[in-house]
Amino acid sequence: MSPARLEAFSDGVLAIIITIMVLELKVPHGSDLTALYPLCRVFLAYVLSFIYVGIYWNNHHHLLHTVKRVSAGIMWANLHLLFWLSLFPVVTAWAGENPDAPWPTALYGAVLLAAALAWLILQRAIIASGGVLRRALGADWKGKLSPVLYLSGIGLSFAVHPWLGNLLFATVAALWIIPDRRIEAHLGIEG
Amino acid sequence: MSPARLEAFSDGVLAIIITIMVLELKVPHGSDLTALYPLCRVFLAYVLSFIYVGIYWNNHHHLLHTVKRVSAGIMWANLHLLFWLSLFPVVTAWAGENPDAPWPTALYGAVLLAAALAWLILQRAIIASGGVLRRALGADWKGKLSPVLYLSGIGLSFAVHPWLGNLLFATVAALWIIPDRRIEAHLGIEG
Amino acid sequence: MSPARLEAFSDGVLAIIITIMVLELKVPHGSDLTALYPLCRVFLAYVLSFIYVGIYWNNHHHLLHTVKRVSAGIMWANLHLLFWLSLFPVVTAWAGENPDAPWPTALYGAVLLAAALAWLILQRAIIASGGVLRRALGADWKGKLSPVLYLSGIGLSFAVHPWLGNLLFATVAALWIIPDRRIEAHLGIEG
Amino acid sequence: MSPARLEAFSDGVLAIIITIMVLELKVPHGSDLTALYPLCRVFLAYVLSFIYVGIYWNNHHHLLHTVKRVSAGIMWANLHLLFWLSLFPVVTAWAGENPDAPWPTALYGAVLLAAALAWLILQRAIIASGGVLRRALGADWKGKLSPVLYLSGIGLSFAVHPWLGNLLFATVAALWIIPDRRIEAHLGIEG
Repeated sequence: MSPARLEAFSDGVLAIIITIMVLELKVPHGSDLTALYPLCRVFLAYVLSFIYVGIYWNNHHHLLHTVKRVSAGIMWANLHLLFWLSLFPVVTAWAGENPDAPWPTALYGAVLLAAALAWLILQRAIIASGGVLRRALGADWKGKLSPVLYLSGIGLSFAVHPWLGNLLFATVAALWIIPDRRIEAHLGIEG
Repeated sequence: MSPARLEAFSDGVLAIIITIMVLELKVPHGSDLTALYPLCRVFLAYVLSFIYVGIYWNNHHHLLHTVKRVSAGIMWANLHLLFWLSLFPVVTAWAGENPDAPWPTALYGAVLLAAALAWLILQRAIIASGGVLRRALGADWKGKLSPVLYLSGIGLSFAVHPWLGNLLFATVAALWIIPDRRIEAHLGIEG
Repeated sequence: MSPARLEAFSDGVLAIIITIMVLELKVPHGSDLTALYPLCRVFLAYVLSFIYVGIYWNNHHHLLHTVKRVSAGIMWANLHLLFWLSLFPVVTAWAGENPDAPWPTALYGAVLLAAALAWLILQRAIIASGGVLRRALGADWKGKLSPVLYLSGIGLSFAVHPWLGNLLFATVAALWIIPDRRIEAHLGIEG
Repeated sequence: MSPARLEAFSDGVLAIIITIMVLELKVPHGSDLTALYPLCRVFLAYVLSFIYVGIYWNNHHHLLHTVKRVSAGIMWANLHLLFWLSLFPVVTAWAGENPDAPWPTALYGAVLLAAALAWLILQRAIIASGGVLRRALGADWKGKLSPVLYLSGIGLSFAVHPWLGNLLFATVAALWIIPDRRIEAHLGIEG
């Protein structure tokens, strides 16, 4: 199997995930502004998940770019990643509908964590098959820091308030969007 | 990232958006003609949104055609556009189910407006990366006029009746479909 | 726009239509065999629509194969066809849930008819842009006969029973599947 | 039609099937951990079906790789396979929601069986069109054993308990994942 086909299939799945998430934004009952209030938090959760899928889509491309030949290990590691990403719509909706309860936000964080670990597994499968990925990754401080932040977010959702957990999850997303090359280089030296 | 892949992903998302909108056309309860009446207005809203996604899909192709290399700015500006387009199904359904209330139509117009602004941002990101887009655009009177018409439609939905707002939104769609080269040239000179 | 991209987008929409139709097969309430009975007729309707989308997908490929350059007319004629095909899921579900009422079956037939007319319009747009399609089509007896049979099926649904209408719709599908070259040649001479 | 296009369309349908299955994981009612309990078994069913679609996607690629020219027989055999795979979401949800009743698990097994038979039919259609598939298949013990195991699973769901049926269905999936070359070679000689 060529990397191009793995990428096309993954792109298809990601395009569907990012789009069906919106199906969880249920059409409001009622026709005035107050009917939109319950949707506000689901909307915010949708925005965050949309950004996350966008980040994964973008980085997934760079990751597969280093692959020469798709082994069975890479294929299943990739499907494993897509599996956790496919859970985004349902956990996004549950967290968005229950912003004050710790469990929904914690489960959202747990799926983010599982996707992050699946990402690391996919990286290892690609490194094991050779190629230039190991050197390109460097210390990979983002990949290592993210699971810690997800775990902290889950803990804070129970200990303090789900909003703090969500704040941490949004922070991780911001870390991955901002092309912070200096910090990356700096931590790359220290790591 | 190559423009081809950005386009393939965007095409995938647009194909899904244009298709899942139909899921908001709920199967009628009852089996005679009267069961279809409540669907009529949702159907009209669906037609308008279908045309809008078709227009965006077609123009998106022309826009990306001028891109040589996809920068991070272009990628996120593109995702930003897809985000607003992904809201079409839910706002279409809300507006279609409540054709006489101002808020649903206004929200529909607001999402149209946001998509139009996201389109202008994407244009700027592409122009900033170089290439021939700036000259090809000319005065871009359609791109500049559309937000004004959307805002007017939102205002008229509250001040007069949502139907007038919808009429204006349909007018904007017609402006983009009709290949009115003479008007385009004329206004291009005046603009 | 190249025909390849038009085809890729259309394939995407058709793949989504053929798959989301299954979402209208609602998960049965109850856990024994009797819970499946109400699904039987929806299932049959699903099978017929699945075959129809398969036929359109297959023929769409042959049609676009003759296109050299996609004009605005071809693009909108193609979107117009996709629009009617996108209504298959909802009319399939309505007809499947109400197999004994004339209106749902008639509406199903009306959407089949509209898709068939959209198909003829797309053919004309392609012929108008030049190329070899006109000669390849020959008398196109299938394309001309199908609308007549759809109309007859709609009429029979009211006059006799929806089952007869569905029988006719299934007959048209069979006409398009069976690679009946002799009949095609024969009628081609007579036509 | 080229095998590349058949594969792209099939990939699209498989990507959609694998993703819309998650729509059957309904957002829990309630906001604490107990609200997740009813989802557990649907989740397990989802995992199994996700793996099955992954297996079919992977093997489908290898199968089509041996095709030079897509005949009408291959195209319809392929659509026939996609038809049964498209039923995965609904039977997965029914089986997952009723893990202790024999009929839902039996129907799940019946759809797995139908997909396996559709797979064998597709293989035959490809072999009939020439190419190297027959030699590459060898004794195809997995393809022949799977239907027997599905039938046994259906029988055990009624005779003993659905869990035993599900265990057998999971075993078949494991057989296809594990790259068990020695067993394959061994049974290939005996077969």
